[in-house]
Amino acid sequence: MLQVDHFWAVVPAGGAGTRLWPLSRSSSPKFLLDLTGSGRTLIQQTVERLAPLAGERLLVVTGSAHRDAVAGQLPSLDVDSLVVEPSPRDSMAAIGLAAALVERRDPDAVIGSFAADHVIGDDAGFHDAVGRAVAAATDGWLVTIGITPTSPATGFGYVEVGAPLAGHDGVHRASGFVEKPDAARASEYVAGGRHRWNAGMFLARPGVLLDLLAEQDDGFAARLRSIAADPARLTELWDDLPTIAIDHAVAEPAAAAGRVAVLPADLAWDDLGDLDSLARVLGAEGTLRVLGEESSVAVAGATGLVVPASGRVVAVVGLDDVVVVDTPDALLVTSRAQAQRVREIVAGLEEAGHDELR
Amino acid sequence: MLQVDHFWAVVPAGGAGTRLWPLSRSSSPKFLLDLTGSGRTLIQQTVERLAPLAGERLLVVTGSAHRDAVAGQLPSLDVDSLVVEPSPRDSMAAIGLAAALVERRDPDAVIGSFAADHVIGDDAGFHDAVGRAVAAATDGWLVTIGITPTSPATGFGYVEVGAPLAGHDGVHRASGFVEKPDAARASEYVAGGRHRWNAGMFLARPGVLLDLLAEQDDGFAARLRSIAADPARLTELWDDLPTIAIDHAVAEPAAAAGRVAVLPADLAWDDLGDLDSLARVLGAEGTLRVLGEESSVAVAGATGLVVPASGRVVAVVGLDDVVVVDTPDALLVTSRAQAQRVREIVAGLEEAGHDELR
Repeated sequence: MLQVDHFWAVVPAGGAGTRLWPLSRSSSPKFLLDLTGSGRTLIQQTVERLAPLAGERLLVVTGSAHRDAVAGQLPSLDVDSLVVEPSPRDSMAAIGLAAALVERRDPDAVIGSFAADHVIGDDAGFHDAVGRAVAAATDGWLVTIGITPTSPATGFGYVEVGAPLAGHDGVHRASGFVEKPDAARASEYVAGGRHRWNAGMFLARPGVLLDLLAEQDDGFAARLRSIAADPARLTELWDDLPTIAIDHAVAEPAAAAGRVAVLPADLAWDDLGDLDSLARVLGAEGTLRVLGEESSVAVAGATGLVVPASGRVVAVVGLDDVVVVDTPDALLVTSRAQAQRVREIVAGLEEAGHDELR
Repeated sequence: MLQVDHFWAVVPAGGAGTRLWPLSRSSSPKFLLDLTGSGRTLIQQTVERLAPLAGERLLVVTGSAHRDAVAGQLPSLDVDSLVVEPSPRDSMAAIGLAAALVERRDPDAVIGSFAADHVIGDDAGFHDAVGRAVAAATDGWLVTIGITPTSPATGFGYVEVGAPLAGHDGVHRASGFVEKPDAARASEYVAGGRHRWNAGMFLARPGVLLDLLAEQDDGFAARLRSIAADPARLTELWDDLPTIAIDHAVAEPAAAAGRVAVLPADLAWDDLGDLDSLARVLGAEGTLRVLGEESSVAVAGATGLVVPASGRVVAVVGLDDVVVVDTPDALLVTSRAQAQRVREIVAGLEEAGHDELR
């Protein structure tokens, strides 16, 4: 039996993913899209990856704008498993509310939070890592799964691996978190071998997580517990919650206090943070990958990624590492190396009178 | 008065311009398009450039598929000025038939043939050059206007300038024509200073042109004159005419016989032969040019040419010398350097089941 007793999976489903524009929009964020050509959206894949471990013990936390879409994509999700945020308050409020809800349902619970819009290539490795992380979390640690870096990425934060944790095979103390580094420092991290990517995977007993939060901001934790005790107060209490990521609110101060553990793992993880990342996950090195209908794309001497999503023929000629995303109302042409700059375009759409395309 | 007595302008309007796909198609060839953003199509600009010289003495020769479109774009063209080919027979048949028709209408005529789908930046220089070329043609020469090369182009044929022609200021004997050269030879031509681009501009008395043709193929010339004598025989006689360019049929053998003159000129001419050429004419060096609605294009760090012709927003990010042509049913993304390879795409469309896009 793969199920991990008392393990509750939490899936925060937020963020527009503007760096994947025009594939993702504020109305159709990344987690609602099939970005791997598998026929399943990212949130469907995330939930299906967690189901063998958590069974019915699953909470998806999303914004009111996406409630219907999430429910439609996850028809087996029962109503208690879908937590709807009245407004965006970043990951601490989303995960903290889930923790407060689980704390009341299962006194022996360990929650694990996994973003709805990341990909993991190695499901078996993931299941193994979560099982071991849950064991450490049961002992009171805030545990993060740290991904072995495959490149000196500057788009991720890193976690530094410390001494092994007695009694928990493969688990180490976390020496600390570091913010997104510059290129030189990222290279040092990869060469040094002590740093892992912070993939935003956090596991803890709900009470441990909320108590760590209370040490930083006792009102924040108290309000989350008040909502869990009386969900009718959600609307009243939610809007005053701080907008802050769980990394800053809890993980960094807890690591500084020596209370965070890290499980290094090599899971073929990717956050699909931009179109270059999507191209990499789809295997577009030295060849041209099509996400969508192959017969719509005509190629002569080109490599990169083409997403033909408008029904039209897309011809790409003589360009290496190009990215073409063709949708019914907007077209993006860029290079893999420059793909992150699409944010500049999205920022400019509003002032250009194209707010409907964001 | 700018008009040149007895000068008849002939405008062959043929060729699909597949290297400009998907802007040009077999159903909407290059000459029917506004490719300069002027609000006028190439054939309209060509006719308007010739009107001051030729007045009503104009013949447009086009295929039956394009008769209605040409008549629609040139509403002042009278019915005698529109010559319709039953089938494509290349430029010798088209220009030769015009010559045979003019030969009967005006015994003192000089015809000058100018492609419907080229651009000329210097109208005053063009008018001056045609005036002087007509004078030499009146004296019995087959005259070509040779364009000063601005680069070692390998996509054009060249004409070699010989000794000055007495009595005709600026006009020289043509030593001969050369086919499209390789890059090394093209560089020699530009460095040497004796070679000009063959822009397909030919001027001659109709009788001189047809007699030169008769020296090579007397049946060809005789059939053209038979059609002119009795236009009801066009359908009967046309299909058996050879499919050959005027360069091979007349200009090259006539030059070898010392009967061609060349007027070197510097007219900011371009044949708009491919999308790189179009980008150059539109001034896309080091900047991004938009042919169409500027407000439809969003740019971040890109140079080249964008043609937004689908009504959608086109975003181009971080690419130099890119070419994006966005039409309602087909999209092309390429680089200026590789733009000629679009022919590979067009060739592949038929076998890919997209014949309607050619």
